[in-house]
Amino acid sequence: MQITGTFLDEISHDIPHQNWGEKEWDLDFQHMKRMGIDTVILIRSGYRQWLAYPSAYLMKTEGAYKPPVDLVRLFLELSERHGMQFYFGLYDSGKYWWDQGDYAREVELNLHVIDEVWAAYGDAPAFGGWYLSQEVSRKTGGITGLYRKLGIHCKAVSGGLPTLISPYIDGKKAILAKDPSLSREDAVSLEDHQREWREIFAGIQGAVDIVAFQDGHVDYHELADYFAINKALADEFGMQCWTNAESFDRDMPIKFLPIKWEKLRLKLEAARAAGLDKAITFEFSHFMSPQSAYPQAGHLYNRYQEYRKMLA
Amino acid sequence: MQITGTFLDEISHDIPHQNWGEKEWDLDFQHMKRMGIDTVILIRSGYRQWLAYPSAYLMKTEGAYKPPVDLVRLFLELSERHGMQFYFGLYDSGKYWWDQGDYAREVELNLHVIDEVWAAYGDAPAFGGWYLSQEVSRKTGGITGLYRKLGIHCKAVSGGLPTLISPYIDGKKAILAKDPSLSREDAVSLEDHQREWREIFAGIQGAVDIVAFQDGHVDYHELADYFAINKALADEFGMQCWTNAESFDRDMPIKFLPIKWEKLRLKLEAARAAGLDKAITFEFSHFMSPQSAYPQAGHLYNRYQEYRKMLA
Amino acid sequence: MQITGTFLDEISHDIPHQNWGEKEWDLDFQHMKRMGIDTVILIRSGYRQWLAYPSAYLMKTEGAYKPPVDLVRLFLELSERHGMQFYFGLYDSGKYWWDQGDYAREVELNLHVIDEVWAAYGDAPAFGGWYLSQEVSRKTGGITGLYRKLGIHCKAVSGGLPTLISPYIDGKKAILAKDPSLSREDAVSLEDHQREWREIFAGIQGAVDIVAFQDGHVDYHELADYFAINKALADEFGMQCWTNAESFDRDMPIKFLPIKWEKLRLKLEAARAAGLDKAITFEFSHFMSPQSAYPQAGHLYNRYQEYRKMLA
Repeated sequence: MQITGTFLDEISHDIPHQNWGEKEWDLDFQHMKRMGIDTVILIRSGYRQWLAYPSAYLMKTEGAYKPPVDLVRLFLELSERHGMQFYFGLYDSGKYWWDQGDYAREVELNLHVIDEVWAAYGDAPAFGGWYLSQEVSRKTGGITGLYRKLGIHCKAVSGGLPTLISPYIDGKKAILAKDPSLSREDAVSLEDHQREWREIFAGIQGAVDIVAFQDGHVDYHELADYFAINKALADEFGMQCWTNAESFDRDMPIKFLPIKWEKLRLKLEAARAAGLDKAITFEFSHFMSPQSAYPQAGHLYNRYQEYRKMLA
Repeated sequence: MQITGTFLDEISHDIPHQNWGEKEWDLDFQHMKRMGIDTVILIRSGYRQWLAYPSAYLMKTEGAYKPPVDLVRLFLELSERHGMQFYFGLYDSGKYWWDQGDYAREVELNLHVIDEVWAAYGDAPAFGGWYLSQEVSRKTGGITGLYRKLGIHCKAVSGGLPTLISPYIDGKKAILAKDPSLSREDAVSLEDHQREWREIFAGIQGAVDIVAFQDGHVDYHELADYFAINKALADEFGMQCWTNAESFDRDMPIKFLPIKWEKLRLKLEAARAAGLDKAITFEFSHFMSPQSAYPQAGHLYNRYQEYRKMLA
Repeated sequence: MQITGTFLDEISHDIPHQNWGEKEWDLDFQHMKRMGIDTVILIRSGYRQWLAYPSAYLMKTEGAYKPPVDLVRLFLELSERHGMQFYFGLYDSGKYWWDQGDYAREVELNLHVIDEVWAAYGDAPAFGGWYLSQEVSRKTGGITGLYRKLGIHCKAVSGGLPTLISPYIDGKKAILAKDPSLSREDAVSLEDHQREWREIFAGIQGAVDIVAFQDGHVDYHELADYFAINKALADEFGMQCWTNAESFDRDMPIKFLPIKWEKLRLKLEAARAAGLDKAITFEFSHFMSPQSAYPQAGHLYNRYQEYRKMLA
């Protein structure tokens, strides 16, 4: 099970920024390429007031700040140059669907964003799909309708480009980054996970093409069961089932540094055993890149490359 | 709005130490110089038992430890060599004015420190001012009297060298570093901030020459209002109004790593718009230096230098 | 007081992994050698499901994961190559003696581990001792019996190789890494520390040869008293008294980065003053190595080497 995709963590939610310019991003795409990555996914195009592209719409309606550089343009160009598919991550208000439970407002904003983005970047050869960036673990509020409406609109404007979601499992490690705890007693059961996600999948069939559950919120020995359920559900509703192999370590008090290679390998092998369709990671540039500010990432890259060679 | 000053975070309160020797410090002053820095400010000369210079007085009265190197001497020499002004930061007991509310004791200690320091280092050509290191956000306890007495004594012994304070705003991000939270509900109002600081400024007029509010405790869109109030208050009482542009990121769970360049730029532009007199940063060596242990800092340096070139 | 030993933090409990391969480990042993290190101590051979060697026994009984590399073999070879003594750290279940208070089960597992390990690696020339990896600060549960039974068995199978424990002091900084606090009100008294450890030492005499208390859980000015008690107790029961000089900083909100050199020096000088027999550190590879992911560690190495030169 090789990692062939990565998120691009711009705009970052809880991972400190590396302050890279165009030169560093270009080099990073080269490193990705050498590791076999063919897909990059912008985690979100905006979060609260921060934007990855100069959205006239969000600057006006949400008071968002004009970004110093158009990262969407840069990433599309780099994707084209290095032969990758780029997925565009939608805007996450960080409030309407969150504190306020106003999913309709979150949908409305993003319908505009989709139109704006497709008009601006839709002709870029590397524009390969959409990422619905609102991440949940349960059938929370209006999430099913949000995914359905946004997925349908993404596909409608773009001639059917694929849509991706990346939920997490409400497991014992489902803890906010700013919470110092590492685990909790209260976790979802396999049965509840299966039941709720079947309901969600039923509601988003046709609107969402790919589901890539995050693999870091349950214990390692629990992965096989969850992967099996997720794969079966995806099959049942005609979706692709990828794994989002987290390359940072959720078991350590510093939130977050690169994961121990052994853990990542274990998760990839569990995904392979479950027959998942593709592995992507969150994310290469901080946690696996040879030029990451965390040197552990470069060593992880080397260990992973040795593993690929061994598999070949 | 260019950054022309930086704190030197020795003795550090909550930022892990880089363990630099004289060679690294010399190189760092060269990096600072290339960024346009002309002023360095020792954040404090001692904190609890830790000292930046071998204070016979504090070793005797407070049981402080003899430091392995005289950093005040080193910084004065480096400041002279690289053409910078050095501000000496007073001693912070971390207890008398804090837990115990005994501002008189804090003042008494520092009156001795001022005499001791001026006798030892007063003839150094780079000795350019004083930093009153007790940082507050509100009219807390005896802070007005402390600033007044210490400021007057600093100026009296040194022939009127300028005195600086760097308060913070009691905003939604006013959280202790060891507290895992990133924001809080309870924050000062603009009106209370203005009223309390007018009272403080009235009490310290003539004793404190410069006020450099820290810019990291309020949200980015709130800065314009606070900067305007601070500038107007400083004008009213004949003080200079600098901005202390924090170069670390308060929005991330790791406390603290270098700030995202976009955020620093936004803060500097708000300071320029408000007509502030000078920008300093907390602080260069961890968060903006090309040789920082945090490689994100070197990238921030590069982004900032590109911005300077663009402005020129 | 020079540092002549270090722990090897595999399997790590709360320090993020560096993802080194054989090449990096070899280089690290060279760095250690240049610093005068003659003793390396594996902190534990397993923790919960994670293993440092492919223990057939623990994979079967505890469902432990097969590790990607046999670190015990690697460390024994590197120790031999670089002329060091290797201490093998026992398995820490992280549960039986911890949550469940089932010390008998922890002992039973480790009696098997000792046999398995001695059969597999006992003929390695560098195998020089045993580390009983269950770390306590008080006379907790069945800890005395655990140390006695495991120590006796280690010595019995190995022809009397020395056994080491490294307790901590239940001081004001005895805080779990995942707890954001830096200190607490409740701390052991000198008298209680002395009384409880005399009882423990009386119970483990003959089974444990060396005690190396961790030096990071009390304030710096408290070290002299604790060192004196520990040394006197060790003398009373015929044990060697080492110090485990922690090279990470417990006073900072990031848990953990390398310690400030001044603090480490202060602790080493207190250990020398107390006449302790040897200094080891937790641990070289993250916190003192020139190739550590934390560049502060390389600077700490340089400061320490200057200090060694000064002492010579």
